[in-house]
Amino acid sequence: MEYLTEIKVRGYHADFYGHVNNARYLEFFEEDRWAHLESKIDLRKWAAEGIIFLVVNVNVNYRRSVPVGETLLISTDIAEIGSRSVVLKQEILFKNSKQVAADALITFVVTGKSGKVLTMEGDIRKEIEKLRSS
Amino acid sequence: MEYLTEIKVRGYHADFYGHVNNARYLEFFEEDRWAHLESKIDLRKWAAEGIIFLVVNVNVNYRRSVPVGETLLISTDIAEIGSRSVVLKQEILFKNSKQVAADALITFVVTGKSGKVLTMEGDIRKEIEKLRSS
Amino acid sequence: MEYLTEIKVRGYHADFYGHVNNARYLEFFEEDRWAHLESKIDLRKWAAEGIIFLVVNVNVNYRRSVPVGETLLISTDIAEIGSRSVVLKQEILFKNSKQVAADALITFVVTGKSGKVLTMEGDIRKEIEKLRSS
Amino acid sequence: MEYLTEIKVRGYHADFYGHVNNARYLEFFEEDRWAHLESKIDLRKWAAEGIIFLVVNVNVNYRRSVPVGETLLISTDIAEIGSRSVVLKQEILFKNSKQVAADALITFVVTGKSGKVLTMEGDIRKEIEKLRSS
Repeated sequence: MEYLTEIKVRGYHADFYGHVNNARYLEFFEEDRWAHLESKIDLRKWAAEGIIFLVVNVNVNYRRSVPVGETLLISTDIAEIGSRSVVLKQEILFKNSKQVAADALITFVVTGKSGKVLTMEGDIRKEIEKLRSS
Repeated sequence: MEYLTEIKVRGYHADFYGHVNNARYLEFFEEDRWAHLESKIDLRKWAAEGIIFLVVNVNVNYRRSVPVGETLLISTDIAEIGSRSVVLKQEILFKNSKQVAADALITFVVTGKSGKVLTMEGDIRKEIEKLRSS
Repeated sequence: MEYLTEIKVRGYHADFYGHVNNARYLEFFEEDRWAHLESKIDLRKWAAEGIIFLVVNVNVNYRRSVPVGETLLISTDIAEIGSRSVVLKQEILFKNSKQVAADALITFVVTGKSGKVLTMEGDIRKEIEKLRSS
Repeated sequence: MEYLTEIKVRGYHADFYGHVNNARYLEFFEEDRWAHLESKIDLRKWAAEGIIFLVVNVNVNYRRSVPVGETLLISTDIAEIGSRSVVLKQEILFKNSKQVAADALITFVVTGKSGKVLTMEGDIRKEIEKLRSS
């Protein structure tokens, strides 16, 4: 697994309870998705061709609350490539203990210039396969 | 169904794509959960007794992208009361068309003074039952 | 003064210190600016003509920390109309005590279709004058 | 000048206009303030002694809008140490062009165990002097 994103948890990430807020986790996951995507795929070329990623489902397990001062590592991998959608598996780990703070399945579709959902075959499939963590 | 929360979508709610950002939806859902909870339950009393809600899973379907300028309605209801956890069903609707923008299942547990997860029986169960939308 | 925006402070608005986070205040001010603007000016017409507001300076005094559970009122007024910029005066008040939680001077310019800053005269001036709280 | 914080601008940092949102800048500045503070001062010791930083004024100049995809560098320095407050000077630069995207003066006070504002002398003064960028 690759952990492209490392985040030191600050006071502004936390909420009233002193732990990282639920909504903020989604930003942490999103940060690593982009880091992972741009390390594997030529996103400028995709944008120029009007190809867009559209998240359709987010399923997050909050496993341990994260206090201010901790450092987190975030990873992204392919869980499953369907015929018209892709499921990513993401994890947030405590850097020290390597315990899982949260994990998530993120389902997205890819739309082309016309706005239609593309099927996961041919060139698109090949590009998406690059997102597998080796 | 009750729609306690109404939100006019502003430019700062949107992201680069001009639509409400995924993480922001979680704040919209959280806003309505609190509005719903405090309309049904005496949260001050709960806090004084050390009773805390802890979200353990969030499962969101993004059904339609939401452009700036739209007005949204948000609702919260009980989906299921388990022996040690509760599942809420939440919806975000377009005020005009009544179409669903997003829906979510939010699973939480309730912990007591000791930090232990409480079982859904007796007084706690009675309080949680009040969260059903009539 | 008009207080178009009323916000109940939730746990997700607060940070580690249990008070509303500094960055969140800017969203509260922005919320009321839009509410105030759209109550006075036909923003659709402006957008169609390529007229855009651009904030160039924000000067915020944090006067009292705001705990979770408080209800806030927010207001917007004209402080000064310059030849090429406008200064708004904004306030966040505790609804109960009417004490000031924060106030801000927000300086913005208005740009036209060409992207050039417009001078505050003629029709534009007339429109901006409408933003004065009566 | 030291640039302890480097941020790649993502879609979720931007708002409807495709540029980094005004409120988000405050998080960028806050991120670098903490990075700077913890690189110079033993914050755990301060926390144990009940010493807290309280931001009382934020004055931000937005000089150039920041599009998605840019990389930003952020710096923090002492602008002025008063008798009871400190003014920090912060900058956000485009990593490539070194042009200034935004700069800010951030005024804070330091409170002790009693909640009272400390005067900038003796040990506290010595600690605060460490925040000067060399």
